[in-house]
Amino acid sequence: MSNFEITRLVSTQADFNRQLDHLLAWEGVSNQDVQHRVSEILHRVRTQGDRAVLEYTQQFDQVPATSFAELELPQARLQAALDTLPANQRQALEAAAQRVRAYHERQQQTSWQYQEVDGSLLGQQITPMDRVGVYVPGGKAAYPSSVLMNVIPAHVAGVQEIIMVVPTPKGELNELVLAAACLAGVTRVFTIGGAQAVAALAYGTESVPAVDKIVGPGNIYVATAKRMVFGHVGIDMIAGPSEILVVCDGQTPADWIAMDLFSQAEHDEDAQSILVSWDADFIEQVSASIEKLLPTMERAEIIRTSLQQRGALIHVADQQEAVTIINRIAPEHLELSVEDPQAWLPSVRHAGAIFMGRYTAEALGDYCAGPNHVLPTSGTARFSSPLGVYDFQKRSSLIMCSAQGAHELGQIASVLARGEHLSAHARSAEYRIKNQS
Amino acid sequence: MSNFEITRLVSTQADFNRQLDHLLAWEGVSNQDVQHRVSEILHRVRTQGDRAVLEYTQQFDQVPATSFAELELPQARLQAALDTLPANQRQALEAAAQRVRAYHERQQQTSWQYQEVDGSLLGQQITPMDRVGVYVPGGKAAYPSSVLMNVIPAHVAGVQEIIMVVPTPKGELNELVLAAACLAGVTRVFTIGGAQAVAALAYGTESVPAVDKIVGPGNIYVATAKRMVFGHVGIDMIAGPSEILVVCDGQTPADWIAMDLFSQAEHDEDAQSILVSWDADFIEQVSASIEKLLPTMERAEIIRTSLQQRGALIHVADQQEAVTIINRIAPEHLELSVEDPQAWLPSVRHAGAIFMGRYTAEALGDYCAGPNHVLPTSGTARFSSPLGVYDFQKRSSLIMCSAQGAHELGQIASVLARGEHLSAHARSAEYRIKNQS
Repeated sequence: MSNFEITRLVSTQADFNRQLDHLLAWEGVSNQDVQHRVSEILHRVRTQGDRAVLEYTQQFDQVPATSFAELELPQARLQAALDTLPANQRQALEAAAQRVRAYHERQQQTSWQYQEVDGSLLGQQITPMDRVGVYVPGGKAAYPSSVLMNVIPAHVAGVQEIIMVVPTPKGELNELVLAAACLAGVTRVFTIGGAQAVAALAYGTESVPAVDKIVGPGNIYVATAKRMVFGHVGIDMIAGPSEILVVCDGQTPADWIAMDLFSQAEHDEDAQSILVSWDADFIEQVSASIEKLLPTMERAEIIRTSLQQRGALIHVADQQEAVTIINRIAPEHLELSVEDPQAWLPSVRHAGAIFMGRYTAEALGDYCAGPNHVLPTSGTARFSSPLGVYDFQKRSSLIMCSAQGAHELGQIASVLARGEHLSAHARSAEYRIKNQS
Repeated sequence: MSNFEITRLVSTQADFNRQLDHLLAWEGVSNQDVQHRVSEILHRVRTQGDRAVLEYTQQFDQVPATSFAELELPQARLQAALDTLPANQRQALEAAAQRVRAYHERQQQTSWQYQEVDGSLLGQQITPMDRVGVYVPGGKAAYPSSVLMNVIPAHVAGVQEIIMVVPTPKGELNELVLAAACLAGVTRVFTIGGAQAVAALAYGTESVPAVDKIVGPGNIYVATAKRMVFGHVGIDMIAGPSEILVVCDGQTPADWIAMDLFSQAEHDEDAQSILVSWDADFIEQVSASIEKLLPTMERAEIIRTSLQQRGALIHVADQQEAVTIINRIAPEHLELSVEDPQAWLPSVRHAGAIFMGRYTAEALGDYCAGPNHVLPTSGTARFSSPLGVYDFQKRSSLIMCSAQGAHELGQIASVLARGEHLSAHARSAEYRIKNQS
């Protein structure tokens, strides 16, 4: 314990910006060896289908299945998992699912049309994807909450077939994961994983239907495979390590803030927990709480390593500097543990999710508040959004010209098409101009 | 001419599905040599900044600039381009810009919040990206309409800085492109292109500010570079060759339909134009129109090659089969040249843009109807959408628990977190349960 050190930064230091850059630097790397192996797996699954997936599953997951049929779980198995959960777990899972569903229903998009004075019609039609795949990690990283968060938005979007894949190393099944799949609305479950599962979903096999989009977290092989099949199917963002930025005015109990930082750090050694405050005394209190509480944690070693390698306590001059740091980091999770968090909102330009006020621990949002816990990491909140219903729907533009509308638009299109030397475009438009066809 | 053959398919043929698969097959390939060269360009620009971009621009574009400052165009230059356009071109460009803007304003998303009975608040905040890059191809493929279609949605979204890059091979500038940039709301223009321009936008240099997202079409080097920087910045879809599916009931003039097919085919040899009809006589008429009109086209050779290699006239039994083919192809452009196109809409599950009725030539949508002409190609309409305002905005989830809300959610989160063996999550939630902190 005595050697435990968490980075301290002060915004008035001369090299503060450079140090902050250094702290935030993160580059996910997928080495050539991984790329080569994944590439081969994709090729084999694409050309050999079920047989290749079965062989990889036998080999990598040490699953003794002798036919592909053994790699699908019937719906009754999911229901059985739900039915046999301890009552408190079942109630918690049901309450979480209900709240996540209620929030995501607010994200429903609706088609629209409008008519112009000449009778032409313009609009946008919203449709769900036909079929999506949800990757769920197996073994120790199997999180039932992740099943809810990935499946429910697709279900609310109206996706008719939701195919879940989950590896079962040495045959190990997670009952909570299966129960969550049952509650969330999964259509079919295959007990496969790794790059071979991504390939099966992207290209389809005799048994696994090809999907339109693949979402869900996974290891480096899964992430590399998703990146390679992107374009052939849709994918969600490739997630980096999870991070939290807590901004506190010094009035929240220091133990609460320390534990909020731990809750991020316990995910893995690369996770990042940062506290920003303009109250120097409070930073000392949180530091003391960290020292005090760390030995009591189940995952103390992971938390310690994460905080030492990537954590920081940052002292800023004032609220304005805190806002600057928020927007610079574009955090996945932002906790505004301050008196009037609503007043901060207009200044927050980039954040995946904003946890407002002293009572809103990030953990509440991770499980059951309602919003999604799949969020943009590593500063990608600058350009991307939480997973949502909109990720499982798409839009089609609608254009229906009246005779008069086509007459007028045809003249504009003709001029512009000829300016681009596209004369078939021009003539196609000109046919619709009155007295020219 | 005598040897001109366009593929004919009949849905009753035994191997119809296989033939259709063969027709649609398209795999964009980026060979290892291209990847290696792009990778090196990205690395050099990232580490050497302006100097590398300047050298590549001198080398690849044969531009005699001696300093990076010469590679930026002032706003006055854009205004001058607009001011000196012929009146009919300026009016057409202004009319198109106004219509595209009006349509995209309908895509504005709004933030929302709602309060629960215990006083907790949930919501979603919409914010624009800070800065985006728009790639505009130079030389012969320079399309002013493409500038309008890529820039206006970003401008409507509220993006404060829109950085355009456009290569000028041998110094050649396209006045229509510059005029369109002026009208659309571009903030700065750099006359750079290729992978080096993508790298400059993604990583920033001394002169080019780093952006949050890069959109716009480009050659294989540009597409490969975009794919490689994806994750560090956002990108739009990597476009395949353009395609149109025309469904006609046989009552539209055959010459119109032939020209609509040409308007797609003239883009390039890989473009795909397909006609589907249940009227066999009409297919013969369109075939005759194609024979008749082809020799009159400026780009006859490109159109001929495109139609021979990738075009098709498909005879189906009835409307229901036409619908099946629509959803199987998920076309970028769908022309419903039929009597009551509105009646078809509920059946169309996948299409980038739907051009409804005999008067709505695709060309009208390409230039000025209002909806975007950047659309999902190669069947990706199964999971993606036209470029829109939503591509330049992002969402932040909002969660603010009341004391009572945290008390109740804390109990649910605690059970689920302990089920996942994440005890820091559990304890962070439990601190907010009344009488436990």
